[in-house]
Amino acid sequence: MTALDLIREKRDGQALSGDAIRFLVAGACDGSIPDYQLAAWLMAVRLRGMTDAETTALTLAMAASGRQLDLSSIPGRKVDKHSTGGVGDKATLVVAPLVAAAGVPVAKLSGRALGHSGGTLDKLEAIAGFRVDLGIDEFIAQVRTIGIAIAGQTADMVPADKVFYALRDATATVDSVPLIASSVMSKKLAAGADAILLDVKAGRGAFVATVPEAEALARALVALGTSAGRETVAYVTDMEQPLGRAVGNALEVREAIDTLAGRGPAELGDLSLRLAAEMLRLAGVQAVDLHRLLVRGDALRKFAELIRAQGGDPRVVDDPSLLPEAPVQRPVLATVGGHVSGADALEIALAGKALGAGRDRKDAPIDLAVGIVLQKKIGDPIVEGEPLAVIHARTGADAENVANRVAASFTIAERASPRPILLRRVTTSGVERLDL
Amino acid sequence: MTALDLIREKRDGQALSGDAIRFLVAGACDGSIPDYQLAAWLMAVRLRGMTDAETTALTLAMAASGRQLDLSSIPGRKVDKHSTGGVGDKATLVVAPLVAAAGVPVAKLSGRALGHSGGTLDKLEAIAGFRVDLGIDEFIAQVRTIGIAIAGQTADMVPADKVFYALRDATATVDSVPLIASSVMSKKLAAGADAILLDVKAGRGAFVATVPEAEALARALVALGTSAGRETVAYVTDMEQPLGRAVGNALEVREAIDTLAGRGPAELGDLSLRLAAEMLRLAGVQAVDLHRLLVRGDALRKFAELIRAQGGDPRVVDDPSLLPEAPVQRPVLATVGGHVSGADALEIALAGKALGAGRDRKDAPIDLAVGIVLQKKIGDPIVEGEPLAVIHARTGADAENVANRVAASFTIAERASPRPILLRRVTTSGVERLDL
Repeated sequence: MTALDLIREKRDGQALSGDAIRFLVAGACDGSIPDYQLAAWLMAVRLRGMTDAETTALTLAMAASGRQLDLSSIPGRKVDKHSTGGVGDKATLVVAPLVAAAGVPVAKLSGRALGHSGGTLDKLEAIAGFRVDLGIDEFIAQVRTIGIAIAGQTADMVPADKVFYALRDATATVDSVPLIASSVMSKKLAAGADAILLDVKAGRGAFVATVPEAEALARALVALGTSAGRETVAYVTDMEQPLGRAVGNALEVREAIDTLAGRGPAELGDLSLRLAAEMLRLAGVQAVDLHRLLVRGDALRKFAELIRAQGGDPRVVDDPSLLPEAPVQRPVLATVGGHVSGADALEIALAGKALGAGRDRKDAPIDLAVGIVLQKKIGDPIVEGEPLAVIHARTGADAENVANRVAASFTIAERASPRPILLRRVTTSGVERLDL
Repeated sequence: MTALDLIREKRDGQALSGDAIRFLVAGACDGSIPDYQLAAWLMAVRLRGMTDAETTALTLAMAASGRQLDLSSIPGRKVDKHSTGGVGDKATLVVAPLVAAAGVPVAKLSGRALGHSGGTLDKLEAIAGFRVDLGIDEFIAQVRTIGIAIAGQTADMVPADKVFYALRDATATVDSVPLIASSVMSKKLAAGADAILLDVKAGRGAFVATVPEAEALARALVALGTSAGRETVAYVTDMEQPLGRAVGNALEVREAIDTLAGRGPAELGDLSLRLAAEMLRLAGVQAVDLHRLLVRGDALRKFAELIRAQGGDPRVVDDPSLLPEAPVQRPVLATVGGHVSGADALEIALAGKALGAGRDRKDAPIDLAVGIVLQKKIGDPIVEGEPLAVIHARTGADAENVANRVAASFTIAERASPRPILLRRVTTSGVERLDL
């Protein structure tokens, strides 16, 4: 078996054997297959596709390419939660403490901001002192002690994904369902949870733009997780506009705290409660009144516990002004009245990235204070001269630079309805429509 | 413009602009576009194709990527001849001296053996002392003096083709008509001739297996040459069985000498006369009795002149036993009688390569003496126990190793007809069938 043979087979639309897939993954990791052969194979996969069996073999081989967590020392059924990435998506910061407050252990490995997508690790680092680089033993011990830990994947996990992802990013082979699905699920499998909840974003600010595409990806992810022996459920949720109102790291932590305190945006609360309830169901836990955990402050206290355990200042949950604040706040005003009919998540994210809230390379620095806070969302009425959003910038010039872009990301029509957030629930049994 | 954008456009089946193609070629040559991006683009081209305009832009950009010969100091209209590569294809060794003997200057750059295909330079090096690495000035001066020179392309010609070819070879993107056509024609354009004659081989021993594929390639090559301002004609000729009887470097030189002396295999003589006549027509030369040039010995004397001018021993044309000879000659006998119905050019070439007559890497050494001489060709009657071929090997063990493979490359049936050699003549006006 040679890489050239396997490139040729995939080029001709044939399905590769499990041995062939494992040969490619091993060769990607040990460097015995050069980048240019992997790139040609990835383009052939992008254009020819992969069967379910190939995708499963790829996912399992990638998961097994590095360290795999063993969470068995943590009592109970562990449930992971993963979002495919979006704009203003701080749901993990709400859902994880809420679920932990309900007694279900949360051992969560998260990622960093890249491109227009935010990352949970960067958001948590907006809390002074918060450490995301826990060792594996420390990570597991913390879940055993306080029921929750959120940390970065260690460098030795899923090395195959790092090789493939870097190449896909440079060769226009990112948007392939089998490649996306194997990348996501290999990391979830290696993270060791018993069950997996996926939040597949659909819309302008997501990896996939349309609900049918997101549904296809969700089906692929659920099938993959199931065939790997992990109960897996996926939601398709709206990412046409940003989730909630805040886009930017410290701004999003503040909004998560507000939501845990029961005063956040309704749609973020609705999504978080739904995802938390699903995680409890996957954990096999009987009905818990999650709303009460928010109202009584249990979830917010659990978040404070998490922050303290990982070296951060827990007072932030009572006094969000301890978070970094940008020196300049500049409103963007509506030039006509009507109803907000669009708030382009991608454009708003790119404006935020231009302010310094995001990055194009994994090791680039990030400005944790800056971002954009939407004052209006789709369906909201607006009067000429009212603020559509507030730009939080390092300098006045930075704010001016993106003001037109932020303004242009909104569209205003005579009438417009609010967008539903929950669109589909996908299980092995099928697809349930939630937006009816 | 970035390489990533252009990969994405080709991935999505769009046609790239001339500027985009030139950007890719420049980036391939100066190393600013990494191999893995070029590989992904090549696979996208292999699966999505290229328009005629893209192929022309690619060919011109590749030709212009390095040194381009200026043959204007050589009087008359210069005609190049190129074969797409085959097994036992020593036609250049016959055609070039024959055309030069007719007074048409031949400034020919040739290649080396690679894979199952032979190379004119290796064959010429079977003549003791023959130098193929002429400097450009020396090359042109020789054509001016004696009307013929055959040399290797200099290292600074068509560097883009070297980059692309090495990647294509490693990424299963060789068999793409636009990529083959641009590779062939960029080298021909850079070689500076006014008109180009192409011999497109079709069959088991060729780059393309079927006549329709070869015809499509021939049309593409003719269109490319014409759009670049060079009159171009292509023949499609048979490569199902080896051309002539000899496969192997010194063995083929001997057969070329025999043919120049009028005692070679009829089909090699027929092909050579036809190609030579076409070259004369392209050169604008009035009817010359080519057959007479063979019979009178003018063509053979011109070959001797060529050999002397390039440092070889010209006595070889009168005494081919001066060529290297393999120590072992082992016949392969027919186990049944009938008519030869198949003599698989690819299998015979691979057997020859196993003996040492070919190579898989451009810099690998080659054994100039070894090879296979067919005693029977398709259509010939054969009696059980008669030799089908004679293996010329370095050792008895080498000969034994390939004996079964050589035997298995022949098929024998009750009846079979000889195969025509000339199949199509392709010009800008259309395709003429020659095998009727």
